[in-house]
Amino acid sequence: MVGRAQLEALVLKKPLIILAMTTMLAIPSAYSDDALPFTQADIDLAKLLRDDALSGTRAWNIVESLTTEVGPRLAGSAAEARARDWAVETLTRYGFENVRVEPFMIEGWRRGEEVAEVVSPFPQKLAITSLGNSVATSQTGVEADVVLFDSLSSLKAVADGALDGKIVYVGHGMQRTQDGSSYGHFVRLRSAAAIEAGRKGAAAVLIRSIGTDSHRMPHTGNMTYAGDVTPIPIAALSNPDADQIERIAARGEPLRVKLTLTPSYTGAVQSGNVVAELPGTDLADEFVVIGGHLDSWDLGTGAIDDGAGVGITIEVLRRIKEAGLKPRRTIRLVLWGAEEVGLLGGYAYAEKHKENLRKHVIGTESDFGAGRIWKITRSINEEARPVADMIAQLVEPLGIVPGSTDSRSSGPDLTPLNKLGFPGFRFVQDGSDYFDLHHTPDDTLDKIDPAAMDQNVAAYLVFVWMAANSEVSDWGWVND
Amino acid sequence: MVGRAQLEALVLKKPLIILAMTTMLAIPSAYSDDALPFTQADIDLAKLLRDDALSGTRAWNIVESLTTEVGPRLAGSAAEARARDWAVETLTRYGFENVRVEPFMIEGWRRGEEVAEVVSPFPQKLAITSLGNSVATSQTGVEADVVLFDSLSSLKAVADGALDGKIVYVGHGMQRTQDGSSYGHFVRLRSAAAIEAGRKGAAAVLIRSIGTDSHRMPHTGNMTYAGDVTPIPIAALSNPDADQIERIAARGEPLRVKLTLTPSYTGAVQSGNVVAELPGTDLADEFVVIGGHLDSWDLGTGAIDDGAGVGITIEVLRRIKEAGLKPRRTIRLVLWGAEEVGLLGGYAYAEKHKENLRKHVIGTESDFGAGRIWKITRSINEEARPVADMIAQLVEPLGIVPGSTDSRSSGPDLTPLNKLGFPGFRFVQDGSDYFDLHHTPDDTLDKIDPAAMDQNVAAYLVFVWMAANSEVSDWGWVND
Repeated sequence: MVGRAQLEALVLKKPLIILAMTTMLAIPSAYSDDALPFTQADIDLAKLLRDDALSGTRAWNIVESLTTEVGPRLAGSAAEARARDWAVETLTRYGFENVRVEPFMIEGWRRGEEVAEVVSPFPQKLAITSLGNSVATSQTGVEADVVLFDSLSSLKAVADGALDGKIVYVGHGMQRTQDGSSYGHFVRLRSAAAIEAGRKGAAAVLIRSIGTDSHRMPHTGNMTYAGDVTPIPIAALSNPDADQIERIAARGEPLRVKLTLTPSYTGAVQSGNVVAELPGTDLADEFVVIGGHLDSWDLGTGAIDDGAGVGITIEVLRRIKEAGLKPRRTIRLVLWGAEEVGLLGGYAYAEKHKENLRKHVIGTESDFGAGRIWKITRSINEEARPVADMIAQLVEPLGIVPGSTDSRSSGPDLTPLNKLGFPGFRFVQDGSDYFDLHHTPDDTLDKIDPAAMDQNVAAYLVFVWMAANSEVSDWGWVND
Repeated sequence: MVGRAQLEALVLKKPLIILAMTTMLAIPSAYSDDALPFTQADIDLAKLLRDDALSGTRAWNIVESLTTEVGPRLAGSAAEARARDWAVETLTRYGFENVRVEPFMIEGWRRGEEVAEVVSPFPQKLAITSLGNSVATSQTGVEADVVLFDSLSSLKAVADGALDGKIVYVGHGMQRTQDGSSYGHFVRLRSAAAIEAGRKGAAAVLIRSIGTDSHRMPHTGNMTYAGDVTPIPIAALSNPDADQIERIAARGEPLRVKLTLTPSYTGAVQSGNVVAELPGTDLADEFVVIGGHLDSWDLGTGAIDDGAGVGITIEVLRRIKEAGLKPRRTIRLVLWGAEEVGLLGGYAYAEKHKENLRKHVIGTESDFGAGRIWKITRSINEEARPVADMIAQLVEPLGIVPGSTDSRSSGPDLTPLNKLGFPGFRFVQDGSDYFDLHHTPDDTLDKIDPAAMDQNVAAYLVFVWMAANSEVSDWGWVND
């Protein structure tokens, strides 16, 4: 580990040799040297941290531990509580400080039986899964003729009450994208289909999974009801099953389906965020925040969503700690709870820390799988631009390019902060296959390439180190 | 459809123009022209049938029809009976002759509930499926500590009674192969694990799926018991679940699992082979046999296993019939029943037709998915070699190479005939991904490439036409 040796040499105040080896980096010409809000030593350290990570990290091992020793960890469940125990034990063992759970209460929901079948014209079983928060059918299920729609828009166009007693099926045309940007559009079907179909009088809804694979793996995910519409049960069909439903219906005979879902609400249950810190030195009361979410859906072991984010960000702190480096600002790790059921950990955090949100200088969440990072998006002020540009320059050898400079997003669980004016920064991973696995039983460890996780760790190390040590304490909070 | 026009011209006794266009084919130099047991006209017809098929066939549409309108079709079930109805209707509609069901009785088996979970040290559900023919656990399941083995050999090495009351887990190292040749080795684990573990006193068995994918899709398949060993329940874990079990066990704490399986035996139930023919002319009492099996496992819709074989071989007859061609020998299509549960259709056929098996000149079953054919294997006599060599020459432009000349195999359902001395002939498909899908819920239509099916149809047309029209009536029956 040459990189480690160099790091140690630098920390042990032997900078001259190291600097001679590492100052090949050109400073952006747009800024004069004396105006730069960071030191050459920090640039060199960031490079060393970056390169050392590429030689192999423990990020994958951390995911392996979480997914094996806890497995699936639905928000509010005993398994999510075990994940918090795992996190506290792990973060304490690595020697981080201020390790704690910040608990909050949520309304619990638990999956039950979920079966569906074509009754006629061609009897056969269907692979389905309840959407999170769905009400149940009766114990004996609901059987009805199916009315098919090709999109949420088509369903919306039908008159209220026109689907009385029917089972509504809604398809869509989601295709894979590298940045996952089509998810925001298509996921509205998952969120809103039960409301829209309920308004039309339907007895239940089946949607084509919000996913891009062609496996018999239905994709779950959260949905909502509206106060003025009677809640009706909703489930997702796997994509091959949705194809089958559409083919059967195309034969022209009435399509009759039976659906039984028995999920239940479990009342007020506990969730929580797990927090750990590497304390800062002269700017210890300011925070750079990273993390991933600790909860997962119950079908898989949550390896890519979001064991990967947990593993990447824990490993970032572990490597800085192990190198004996002391950041100026406090690096705060937040492993968010109850993300999947409405970013509840994010909202609880924003509420709990509302008195000192402005001490959160910058931050970002890793929550888009385990693929390589290929792009940076951000929304920051002019003062922070030299730091962000230097970060971009330092991660360019990792294959990462600058993207939008007008994206006030820092990842799902920082959305509540972004809404309050927190500046945006995000490393965008390659999610081309993310929605093949997302929210399915197939979200398991075998899908992760450890080398891609190392690349993520390298990029996060650069970000964290530069952000924690630069002169910039305001990256562009808005709405003062 | 230039090919179709050419075919029609030939059938309408205008061979001269056609022959001028198509006699570029060199006759193998090993044989003198007058000794060749086939005509140039048949070679030309075979080429035309081949090339016409490459411009697009209905093979995929036939699979689409079967898998949509019948879906899963377990041996002995009402769904398999519907598949026979579908076959009779389809074959009659295409104008084939002697369309009939040849029924036989089998012992029925039906899947029940199937759930498993790690009880300790890390509670989580496991994705499993009963193997076909497994006995049930009690309704409340069996809970026990797990003893792990890495292979059937390791399990066999344990002393009888040494695993009293344990749940046995057995892994293996199956890797993908192009010709599927490793299946024969690894499938012994599926067949024999319950016998071996039962002999050691185990309460139940979990095996790693006999499959090459990494999805949460356990692979079912038939298993057997021995008369002298108490039957114990057996299920397969998906490969990611098997990985998880091995990781958990590697932590060193006792691994405790609960398993509930409630399959049942349904007594004597009906299955059947569906037969259809294109009658021959001067050699009508001799048969060239092709087909696929009509039953499937109950988890998927049996698209690759074996809707593909059904679609390819029906389409072969349909194209010959539609072209108005009259073969010298009768081309017999057999859509076998109850293949998956022990080649029962094959055995029933051999028994029913035992008086005139020797009239079965040559034949082959398509039952290795929907991939492209890349190899021919065979075991035939010297007399038939010129015909087989000409077939090989005619399919070479399809990317098909000659393989073993010592393989007395004609596909699973012809195994009973091969055992009685029927000469072997097989088109080997590319099965690199066959065991990703085999016997899982994922065996569905979307996995099939229609163009690859067309290539199969082209090859089968060559085989069928040359075999049905050559001078050779004995391809090498043995054990006279």
